[in-house]
Amino acid sequence: MSNYIRYSYKELEKFCNDCFNKFGFTEDESRIITDVLLLSDLYGIESHGMQRLARYHKGIEKGLIKIDAKPEIVYETPVSAVIEGNDGMGQLISHKAMSIAIEKAKNTGMAIVTVRNSNHFGIAGYYAKMACDAGLLGMAMTNSEAIMVPTFGRLAMLGSNPIAVAMPAEPYDFFFDASTTVVTRGKLEIYNKLNKPLPEGWALDSKGKGSSDASDVLKNIVAKNGGGIMPLGGETEQTGSHKGYGYGMFCEIFCSILSMGLTSNHTHIGGKGGTCHGFIAIDPKVFGDPAAIKEHLSTFLKELRESPKSEGQTRIYTHGEKEIFAKADRLQNGIDVNINTVKEMFDMCNYVGLNPVDYLGDVKFDNSTESSYN
Amino acid sequence: MSNYIRYSYKELEKFCNDCFNKFGFTEDESRIITDVLLLSDLYGIESHGMQRLARYHKGIEKGLIKIDAKPEIVYETPVSAVIEGNDGMGQLISHKAMSIAIEKAKNTGMAIVTVRNSNHFGIAGYYAKMACDAGLLGMAMTNSEAIMVPTFGRLAMLGSNPIAVAMPAEPYDFFFDASTTVVTRGKLEIYNKLNKPLPEGWALDSKGKGSSDASDVLKNIVAKNGGGIMPLGGETEQTGSHKGYGYGMFCEIFCSILSMGLTSNHTHIGGKGGTCHGFIAIDPKVFGDPAAIKEHLSTFLKELRESPKSEGQTRIYTHGEKEIFAKADRLQNGIDVNINTVKEMFDMCNYVGLNPVDYLGDVKFDNSTESSYN
Repeated sequence: MSNYIRYSYKELEKFCNDCFNKFGFTEDESRIITDVLLLSDLYGIESHGMQRLARYHKGIEKGLIKIDAKPEIVYETPVSAVIEGNDGMGQLISHKAMSIAIEKAKNTGMAIVTVRNSNHFGIAGYYAKMACDAGLLGMAMTNSEAIMVPTFGRLAMLGSNPIAVAMPAEPYDFFFDASTTVVTRGKLEIYNKLNKPLPEGWALDSKGKGSSDASDVLKNIVAKNGGGIMPLGGETEQTGSHKGYGYGMFCEIFCSILSMGLTSNHTHIGGKGGTCHGFIAIDPKVFGDPAAIKEHLSTFLKELRESPKSEGQTRIYTHGEKEIFAKADRLQNGIDVNINTVKEMFDMCNYVGLNPVDYLGDVKFDNSTESSYN
Repeated sequence: MSNYIRYSYKELEKFCNDCFNKFGFTEDESRIITDVLLLSDLYGIESHGMQRLARYHKGIEKGLIKIDAKPEIVYETPVSAVIEGNDGMGQLISHKAMSIAIEKAKNTGMAIVTVRNSNHFGIAGYYAKMACDAGLLGMAMTNSEAIMVPTFGRLAMLGSNPIAVAMPAEPYDFFFDASTTVVTRGKLEIYNKLNKPLPEGWALDSKGKGSSDASDVLKNIVAKNGGGIMPLGGETEQTGSHKGYGYGMFCEIFCSILSMGLTSNHTHIGGKGGTCHGFIAIDPKVFGDPAAIKEHLSTFLKELRESPKSEGQTRIYTHGEKEIFAKADRLQNGIDVNINTVKEMFDMCNYVGLNPVDYLGDVKFDNSTESSYN
């Protein structure tokens, strides 16, 4: 039995747009949210696409995400802005923030926009790509609910703190988007569902010791009992744990520190979200000829792809290549959505007063289907 | 028998200043080079302090480093500069580059200076610290001779590509300085000297397979036979290899790509150095009150240090803390220099026409002392 149902991009786009519109977002706003979510599914980052819908829905219901909130610029210079998100939808605040960074960078050469009191913004890469699509070097970062345990600690103090970097290149842009933890919580959830032991170097138990028990680690994270996910580089300095922890700090500086917002260890406590983001846009023209710089990067990426492979490997990827191929495939052949997620999408339709069958077809769910709404 | 001789900071400072002066650098230039090298020793980063002297000396002898070369600004805007290093001494070019970045950032809020055709610049952290000491958020990066093998590859294509970030905080500044490889070549050399097998997840043999044989890996690196050091995150995507490789690319973009310089895989070939650097300075005042931002960061760092420890651990470090303690200790108690390095310092004195005994005392070397000059 297949656990996935395939939908076309257009079908999911219509579903998302109409749902968010029904929630009370304007058409333009719904289009932005939909675009962010679906780019994630197109890029094969299932955890941040349709699968996230239920969590956004819950966030709206709980009042963590305020539909009518408008982001405000509270501090501004020609190269910078600080945005107070007022607990609005993360994608809308972030789209605005990166748009401001791009506009400023087009004028001054570079700009940084830092955001406080926002919510989950989807994939960081979406916003880095916005700058890249405008011909700029783009960066996007976010903090999150604490999940990364600092080296030698046993309590999560930093978020998954992804850093995304995108820069124009041919035939594929450079596009790097990764958490500064060794893996994300989504990976632990997959291992938990499959009842598989976690690989060494991923997670810590409540005492701060390496753990292969996904279920136990996830329970501890939810209950804030201690433990969590290791920084990129694992548990000890021997494998570079302090380096991943350092990149997590780098992210935190551009998100929560410069914005005077909540650091990850203070977000998502007591009915408050408080997520912070950071956006950077840099125009290559302030270093010379942008076309020559783009060609120079393209050459290096090509040299990397064509360099000798490790025994048994047939391919070296440059960052963003996998996503480009995944997108082309899914735009043509459709996007597979997990049956549990489809159930959540049905529940969401019913909640906002749309007929799910009109959007998603007449799907039969059996008792094994798990919806977050159950 | 002790393998180290202890010197005071003042003794080493005088030795370095006089040696570089004798090489033909001005007094001001010698002071900058000395300051960069000795900060490394003070911070406990032995590999980049006195131990590097022989390599600089060789670089000058071979003509890779040109004493009289003056860095030129070849492109400039109020927020940026591109510097042609003309194969000069890396420390001098980099000190100038970061000084320019700081000056521009004080005027505009932020600045990026990218450098091509330079040489090894010492520790990246020195330059990030320059910005931090001026009250700014500083970053410094460099590419290097290729040593990092990209994920699924078997040939080194990127350098150790360190990224340093420093930002003012109390009681210790945030100071992060780390290679984007899992470890540096210096660590492999230490294991080789001790005849110890390398830990898993560090190095690759000429076929691109994990290797614990330090001697074999080092020989292959020198002969460019393939193999090298893994990115932070190890060998496979499961442990995040593609992430370390991504940070290596981030470094390369700010160093070799924006400057139109040589990417790591093209440096140090055919009698040419060609090292590239990147420097970023950001004034927190463009985000609000710098004192409040500094206090906010200080609070988070304190919370990290005071957060619960893993079982068996007594301390969580924030980045830069170890260096501060090491510096205080070494300024008071002196700096231990490896006997092999002392031998190299003797040889260097003799080469430039100084009496080593005047600077380093009457040291007796036995046959086991290995100097790079032997």
